[in-house]
Amino acid sequence: MMNKAEIEKFLEKINLRVDKTLNNWLPPKNTEPGILHNAMRYSVFGDGKRIRPGLIYSVGSAFNIPYEKLDSVAAAIELIHVYSLIHDDLPAMDNDDLRRGKPTCHKAFGEANAILAGDALQALAFNKLCASAEAKKNGGLCTQWVKMLGDAAGSQGMAGGQVLDLAAVGKNISKNDVEKIHRLKTGSLIHAGIMMATLLDDANLSRKENDEISQFALDIGLAFQIKDDILDVEGSSADLGKLKGSDAARGHPTYVTVFGIEVAKDILEKLLEKALQHIDFLEESGEQLRNLSKYIVRRAY
Amino acid sequence: MMNKAEIEKFLEKINLRVDKTLNNWLPPKNTEPGILHNAMRYSVFGDGKRIRPGLIYSVGSAFNIPYEKLDSVAAAIELIHVYSLIHDDLPAMDNDDLRRGKPTCHKAFGEANAILAGDALQALAFNKLCASAEAKKNGGLCTQWVKMLGDAAGSQGMAGGQVLDLAAVGKNISKNDVEKIHRLKTGSLIHAGIMMATLLDDANLSRKENDEISQFALDIGLAFQIKDDILDVEGSSADLGKLKGSDAARGHPTYVTVFGIEVAKDILEKLLEKALQHIDFLEESGEQLRNLSKYIVRRAY
Repeated sequence: MMNKAEIEKFLEKINLRVDKTLNNWLPPKNTEPGILHNAMRYSVFGDGKRIRPGLIYSVGSAFNIPYEKLDSVAAAIELIHVYSLIHDDLPAMDNDDLRRGKPTCHKAFGEANAILAGDALQALAFNKLCASAEAKKNGGLCTQWVKMLGDAAGSQGMAGGQVLDLAAVGKNISKNDVEKIHRLKTGSLIHAGIMMATLLDDANLSRKENDEISQFALDIGLAFQIKDDILDVEGSSADLGKLKGSDAARGHPTYVTVFGIEVAKDILEKLLEKALQHIDFLEESGEQLRNLSKYIVRRAY
Repeated sequence: MMNKAEIEKFLEKINLRVDKTLNNWLPPKNTEPGILHNAMRYSVFGDGKRIRPGLIYSVGSAFNIPYEKLDSVAAAIELIHVYSLIHDDLPAMDNDDLRRGKPTCHKAFGEANAILAGDALQALAFNKLCASAEAKKNGGLCTQWVKMLGDAAGSQGMAGGQVLDLAAVGKNISKNDVEKIHRLKTGSLIHAGIMMATLLDDANLSRKENDEISQFALDIGLAFQIKDDILDVEGSSADLGKLKGSDAARGHPTYVTVFGIEVAKDILEKLLEKALQHIDFLEESGEQLRNLSKYIVRRAY
């Protein structure tokens, strides 16, 4: 099995690959409207971990999908993620000053420009998703990709989860509710990215395999957010690039506030185990996906 | 030629048609997350004029395109328009309390929910655009539609125009600049809707006809916004559903502030004439499109 250094090297490679796609997609710096294009680039090229693209390319490795066929999916998912962070950080939402170790988009470019940078990044994600040679050759693929991305980003996916999350601030919510919020807010986009990758012909999944991968994607998406909740308490502010304990302190529901830290850790380990069982059928070809999954729940930031 | 009452009856019919599509697309009222779905519906089913869908279906009439093939384009364009209004009205942008005669989305549902309702409406527009039978049959059509909608909504279209508009507040800007802002902020989405309609096989445009329609779409999009600028000064607040004179008073660049009202009116009439010349080739089949174009520049609200 790969060790931590190897996974981080893999993520670094993925980071470069995604950045290359994103750099091609985003209008050049200082081109009009300069403040908008610069704000978009500022937030996209932060110090992101690119975990979502990492999962997508690892699914590619598992199913022998050439990486170039996955570039538009990975970059589009990352753009939706980045736009959601910009909007989450706004004064009307989390009112955060720091993100990934630097001022949040609205702190750097003003609130109106931050809202519009997020808006434009969402439009760009859909715009470019089907620009790949693969999707152009296969219009049906584009149709399915757009629908899956739209579902994941929309009112019954990420945006819906964010509304529920904000509505729960300062309230005592049930275990079921915190799970639902996490699945929508964080899980739906991770699930979509993985399932969009498996739509490529190369994957050629049976219905049973499709169900297993889908279950894996749901579990690892939830696990990712539970780990974030734990790091919010146990991570160092320097590693996190934002103030530690900020989610819990703001009254956001987290697995730690609802279950307590020990139970949260236990749930996380069991969830990882369950996720991994779902991809047992991949045998050796699933090695990288398995290692990245373990890394996701054991990372220090 | 149709008289005003006839055009308004046509727009009423279009309004019902678009509302039916939008009602099918939007998650039902009070379904979880209720506040989000209710906010989305509140803004979508305002007292909008549905001028954009009106243009799209009129293009359909001109080219003998069955209306059902245009439903998803009309509804998607309208969703992008509505989401942009929600975000424009936010405190960080225009800080408007009234829209179409009722409280703005953030006044009714709070700022965070308004931002997220706009975000979710944008996702929904892309999500459903290709859900039509037509786009499902023809994946290449979906690919082109998504790209055109993405371009129109993005940083070099509507969102970019909004950034330039806000940056120009309180400044003396040139005639060229106000034209550019209007073309991006308002024109690009109108242009996209019209051109997306003409991509349907039924239209079967020659390259020359395509260029003419594109020119028409650019002209009528700009004319629509100039008329808005004039109404901002000359319309009644009751008709407009918002405070009259608000754009100019806030220092937004308008054709009236930059050119003066008489010159603005003159430019508008000449633009209409030019727009109509571009669709001369449609002969009798262009009657409805011509009448709606005249209505757009002569409406009282």
